[in-house]
Formats: sequence, structure tokens, C-alpha cells
Amino acid sequence: MHLYTADYVVTQNDGRDVIEQGAILVQDSKIQCVGHTDMLEIMYPDAPRTDLGRAVIMPGLVNSHTHVPMSLYRGFSDDKALMDWLTQDIFPAEAKLTPEMVETGALFSFAEMIRTGTTACFDMYMHSDAVFRAADKMGIRAVIGENITQFFPNLAFADMPAYRELVAAQAEKWRNHPRLRQAIVPHAPYTTNPDLLRELRALADDHGAIFGMHLAETRAETEGCLKDHGMRPVPYAHSLGLLQPDSTFFHCVTVDEEDISLLAEGRCAVVHNPASNMKLASGVAPVEKMIAGRVDVALGTDGPASNNAQNMFRDMYLASLLHKVDSLSPTACPAALALDMATRGGSAALHDPLIGSLEPGMRADFIALDLTTPNMQPVHHIVSNLVYAATGMENRLTVVDGKVLYQDGKFTTCDYAALCTEIKERAAFFA
Amino acid sequence: MHLYTADYVVTQNDGRDVIEQGAILVQDSKIQCVGHTDMLEIMYPDAPRTDLGRAVIMPGLVNSHTHVPMSLYRGFSDDKALMDWLTQDIFPAEAKLTPEMVETGALFSFAEMIRTGTTACFDMYMHSDAVFRAADKMGIRAVIGENITQFFPNLAFADMPAYRELVAAQAEKWRNHPRLRQAIVPHAPYTTNPDLLRELRALADDHGAIFGMHLAETRAETEGCLKDHGMRPVPYAHSLGLLQPDSTFFHCVTVDEEDISLLAEGRCAVVHNPASNMKLASGVAPVEKMIAGRVDVALGTDGPASNNAQNMFRDMYLASLLHKVDSLSPTACPAALALDMATRGGSAALHDPLIGSLEPGMRADFIALDLTTPNMQPVHHIVSNLVYAATGMENRLTVVDGKVLYQDGKFTTCDYAALCTEIKERAAFFA
Repeated sequence: MHLYTADYVVTQNDGRDVIEQGAILVQDSKIQCVGHTDMLEIMYPDAPRTDLGRAVIMPGLVNSHTHVPMSLYRGFSDDKALMDWLTQDIFPAEAKLTPEMVETGALFSFAEMIRTGTTACFDMYMHSDAVFRAADKMGIRAVIGENITQFFPNLAFADMPAYRELVAAQAEKWRNHPRLRQAIVPHAPYTTNPDLLRELRALADDHGAIFGMHLAETRAETEGCLKDHGMRPVPYAHSLGLLQPDSTFFHCVTVDEEDISLLAEGRCAVVHNPASNMKLASGVAPVEKMIAGRVDVALGTDGPASNNAQNMFRDMYLASLLHKVDSLSPTACPAALALDMATRGGSAALHDPLIGSLEPGMRADFIALDLTTPNMQPVHHIVSNLVYAATGMENRLTVVDGKVLYQDGKFTTCDYAALCTEIKERAAFFA
Repeated sequence: MHLYTADYVVTQNDGRDVIEQGAILVQDSKIQCVGHTDMLEIMYPDAPRTDLGRAVIMPGLVNSHTHVPMSLYRGFSDDKALMDWLTQDIFPAEAKLTPEMVETGALFSFAEMIRTGTTACFDMYMHSDAVFRAADKMGIRAVIGENITQFFPNLAFADMPAYRELVAAQAEKWRNHPRLRQAIVPHAPYTTNPDLLRELRALADDHGAIFGMHLAETRAETEGCLKDHGMRPVPYAHSLGLLQPDSTFFHCVTVDEEDISLLAEGRCAVVHNPASNMKLASGVAPVEKMIAGRVDVALGTDGPASNNAQNMFRDMYLASLLHKVDSLSPTACPAALALDMATRGGSAALHDPLIGSLEPGMRADFIALDLTTPNMQPVHHIVSNLVYAATGMENRLTVVDGKVLYQDGKFTTCDYAALCTEIKERAAFFA
């Protein structure tokens, strides 16, 4: 067991308790106790202790939608119209990808996440075996899926039999892993067809995998879906039986009230990606309407080619500001809601009830932010400082499953300097 | 003289040259030479040298609109409607302010700016003598003004004669200071009257001071101005002779094409404040239209009560994303434009032609960002990483007027630990 103490513990429990001079006791991979430091000192006098001092302990943030290998393309192409960006720059670059490149990109994004306070993510990309390997090595928690479209060959497999084989082998290999879980992730309605989507839904059931998909990301997608299927994207997904409680849909920008009702009835989770939706000019997802409609909403960065970071503190801040200016209401998306989306919402989107808050019995996934940087002082309301002032670089400690992955400048699961050399060499391939 | 070398120098000169393996030579308070490291080594073999290695040297960012003492109120009140926020929380707190509190708040914001790569700012607040003292001590470059409204007594002076005396004493005291310059800063059209504004404009002429004012910040202000004066805010300011080349107007959210023409004809500078305009839900300033209309546009954070940071990297990022989503065009406000606003735009807004780029003869105001953090790698386009990936916490070195103010965790002009204690004690007064 190990005791961590700090000036503040932000629990994100049901009461959203914030404990001044707080502590958490970790036993193996779980949290055993959360409370005032003086009480936990009495209860566990012999526990080894890390006193973080002027810091705030909080749940690790959950990045519920990303494409981690794309760190290779950070800053490779910006400020272009979506179709130019994809067809001129991103797709040609992706066609050159090897599993080795994907693994390096994934390792590097995981390093960025671990550095900036993210402890879990939901990833979808190509050559996902390499993403599994990278996540296993780095110690982060992840839901991982192999992106699939109807345009065969896909990058990592030639046809459906090869895809089924890939998915079955992954299910076999990673079943019962303490941190990693498989997802079945068709790319989007406009890159698949009804038969393929029905088959993938069945495959998720067969493997007990989470189901995820980009959905209703842009107005163009909605127009295309209406033209091709006579339905908006959400009713289309509903008509194929895709709206299930094990499902997570990414973006959901162009959803109306009927769409929201369908998502709520299906008990699906939705992931909001403010940075990506702003940078690619996709629009503004009706986050507060979805939440009012009883849809669980999480937060994601999207990939490093459209963000261009994997830093959830920035996305919490953006979410809060975007919805205020969009609704012309300064009371929209308050700090507490942004923090909820990045923690408790992540529990819903990753379909893991044991993450998202610091409580006895929950997984020991937490971080600790330094409160001695100028932007974090004074502390009138700690949650305000976390959402409106923190950059993410204040993070000093990242623990996943009870294991320290980063502390005060040192990564414990990678040779960071070697990884920097590797990403530079691999990225040079695309220059 | 002193030679600074790094992997990249982003000059922000007319050609926006980026020099790989670049160097700048500083002589006293000015830049003497900028070029490739191997060339400058030959030219200045005996110059003492700081090799920053995997870093980017760039012009210090210019925060062209803020209220630095409000760091006292960081996180004090958020997520409220503008008038509730002002009348319930901010105005009552401000009524308690003493010059000592203002000085602490200003020192602390300057520390945050220096830490995160800002070398110059345009500040307006109350008890501005204390802001002058703080800026003088911290070594930052600043334009500083005493906020004035028609509601006497103002906090720092009882009536107009007292205000005139305060302003005259400031002019006398700070004239010829190498880094500090006085501004005359009426609060806004809706808190002043035509006679007062005409008198303040004349006072700026008398003292050779810069003139600055909040203008066209909200729709409510525009509606009120139409009702009270039969004109929109910009034509109203024009009718009083306020649109002059030494003038800088803050916000300009609700400006139309005629307003933009007037601002351009007056050769005024405008300061865009994306974080504040989003958080307070003021709306979206037509930045690209103003720039197309030949108005100089700079970037500001606004005060730490509405931002809640003094970190210009965040505001560059926000500016770029806000205009993309607002216009539904991913080509809006590209990275280079955001960087221009924060550097060259700041030169216009502070009316100092010797800041905003790294060129021979310019002031030695520059910063250096670490490129070894995960978010700053790989480097496909360095300006993309600066605008879309940097948090500001990567800054390792801040130099103003040739003097190092911050380097690798150490402030040279303040006892940072003592300042932290001071801000905590002063802020507790408002709890």
C-alpha cells in the first residue's frame, strides 16, 4: 500500500467532494481509502508515503476519442479545407504507414498523455496491433480498435476474412488484460455500408468488444446520409441496431432533438471533440442539450493531426469556452461540467465503471498537478483553476492501475530520449 | 554582447524567415545581428554564448490588453452572466482594493507573463502607480494607464483635478523610462461622457501618452450607444476625435464594415481578446475583416478574472480555432496570422516600432521555447507547433531589453517564493 497526500484532493465522487489537506491510499491497483490526511495517517501509520505538498490530486483525465499514431503528423498539414487536408496530405501520408511507424507514433502520444495528466483513452486507427503493443508497454489504460472501411484492401488487412482473423487474434491475445480492451470501430457511416455495419455490430457481440464509430461529425456527412439512406446519421445507425449500451459515438456535431432521444434511449455514450471540431470547422456539438437529454458525454482530443496535442486540459478549457460563445451565454458549460466530461464522462465512453473518480474500490488512476506555477495561484476555487487556468504541463505525477508512469520529469515505462530520436526519424519520412 | 543560439530562430521579420541552427547577437538592449549560427560564430568569435540547443528563439509575445492586478481574482467568480459577475462579485471586490494589493497582483501577473513568454503588455487598471512600480521592478515592457470613469470618486482619485494631478505626476516620473510608457485610458463609452472623453483625448496629446479604451465589446454596449448618442460606438468615438494613430481600442467585437473603415482611416490599432470574448460570451470579433480592411490587429488576454491566465500562447491558439469554427472555414486565421497578431500586431498596439520581430536594431525582447516536450515534436512546421501545440510552459528563457528575466525555472527580478506567499495572503482578503 502507498499513501499520497497533497493540499487538495478533487474526488469527482457523486458529491464532487474536494478535500483540503487530503490523501488517497492505494492498495495494489485500487484505491482503498480517500480522506483527510490527518485521518489517513492515523488509519495507516505504516504506509509508505509520497507527500506532494502544494499540489492537487485528481482522477486521471480520460481522452475518449483519438488516433494516437498520428503524432507522426503533428503540424504536417494545417489550415486547409477538410477534403484538401485529407486527400492532399493525410491520406497519402497514411498510405505509407508501417506497423513500426504506428507503434512509434502511439508510444509518443502515450508519452504526451502521461506527461499531461491523461490516464486512459479510446483509440481507433490502422495497424492497431502496434497500438496495443505500445499501450501495453507504456502502462496507460486504453480501449483500442482497428479502423475499418468498405474500401478493401484496408491498410492492415486485405479483405473481410483477414479483418475477422485480425480481430479474433486481438480478442484472444488481449482478453483479461488489466488495462487494455478491444473495440470494433467502423470508420463512419459514409465509408461503410449497411451490411458491413450489421456484421461489425455482430462481431462486437461475439467478442464482447466495445463498439465505436465517428457519427454526425459534419453537415456534409448528414447531407450525404440523407441522400444515400434517406435518414440522418443517428437514425441510420439506429436502423442498423448500432445504438446499444456498449456503444460510443465520436463527435455527434450535427444532431437534432430526435437524434438525441435515440442516443439516450440506446444508452450510448457520445464523445465531444472541441479542438478538432473548431480546427476543422466542423461546427459545435449541442453538448448541453445532449446532457439534458440524458446522454453521457465524454471529451476527446481527436488525433494529433487535427488538434495538435494530446492534452485534455486544453480540451476541457476549449469545451467550456466554445459553448459559452456559441450560445452567447457565460453560464454555459461551467468548469465543473467540463471536468465531469473529462473524468466521469470518460468512464461512460470507455464503458469502465471503475474509472473517473477517486473513491474506495475504484482503479488507482490519478494525477497530481503542481500548484506553485503562477497560473495556478491564488486558489479561490480549485476546479476553476483546473479548467480555466491549468495548461496540463503542471502535472507532476501520473499513476495508472496503482503504478507510477511519470513523476517530476521522469517517465518510468519508456526511454524518453530514445523515443524522441525515433519520432524525429520516423516523421522525417513524411517531410 | 551576448550570442544566443538554438535549433530554430523564428524572426517574424517582413519575410517571416525561420532560420534553422540560428543565432541572435544582443548588444546592450538591442539586437545587433540575426543569422545562421555558423556565420555569427565567425563574426563574433569572442561573444559569450548561451546555446539553447533543442529550442526555438522567437520574439517575446505582446499581451496588448490586460488588467494585471486582477490575478488576485483568478477563479474568484466564473460562469456567471456578465452583469451578475460584475455587480455581485467583481465590483464589490474591487472596492476593497489598496495600492499594496494592486502591486502584488501586478507583480504576480508579470511573473506569469515572464514565465510563459510574454515580454510586453498594455495594461489599464486602478491604482496604476502601483502597476508602474511593479513593471519597473519586474523588468517587463509595458504601456500602463489609470482607468477612469465619470463616476467620481474613482478608486484612486476623488475628482478630475486629482486625476489630472495623478496623470501629470506619472508623466513626469516615467518619462524617458526605457521600458515603460504612459497611456490615457477611459474605461469605455458607456462609463464616460462626451466632454470627459474630449478632455482625456486632449490630455493624451498634452502628455504625449498613448490613448486606449474598451470599445464595441458587447451587443448591449452598441445598443446603449445607439440609444444614448444615436451612433454606434466606433462612429461615436470618431465624432469625438478619438480615432487617431496613437490610439488602441480593446475588443471591437460588434463592429461593422463602416466601423472598420473608420478605424482604418484613423490608423488605430485594435486588440482582439478571444479568451475573454468567449468566456464572457461577448461574441466573435471580425478579425480577418479588420485585417483585410487594413486595421492593425493585436492580441490580448484581458484580465485574469475573465481569462483566467496571462498566457499568450493560449490566446494565439484560441484565436486561430475560434475564427475557424465561427466562419465554418478551416482556412480562417491560420497559425501564421495568430503569431503575427501576438508579435507584430503588439508592436502596433503598443505603438513601439522596435518590438515584434527579431532584426538588427530591434529591442532585445525575446523568448526561447524548449522543443523536447512531447507536444513540440516532431517539427514539420515550427510555427504550427508554436500556435497549435505549445502551452507556453515550454518557455525556458525570457529576455527584455537585453536582460534575462527568467531562465530554466529561475526568475531574476523577484523572489518568486515570497511573491507566492504574498498573493495567497492578499487573495485571502476576498475569500
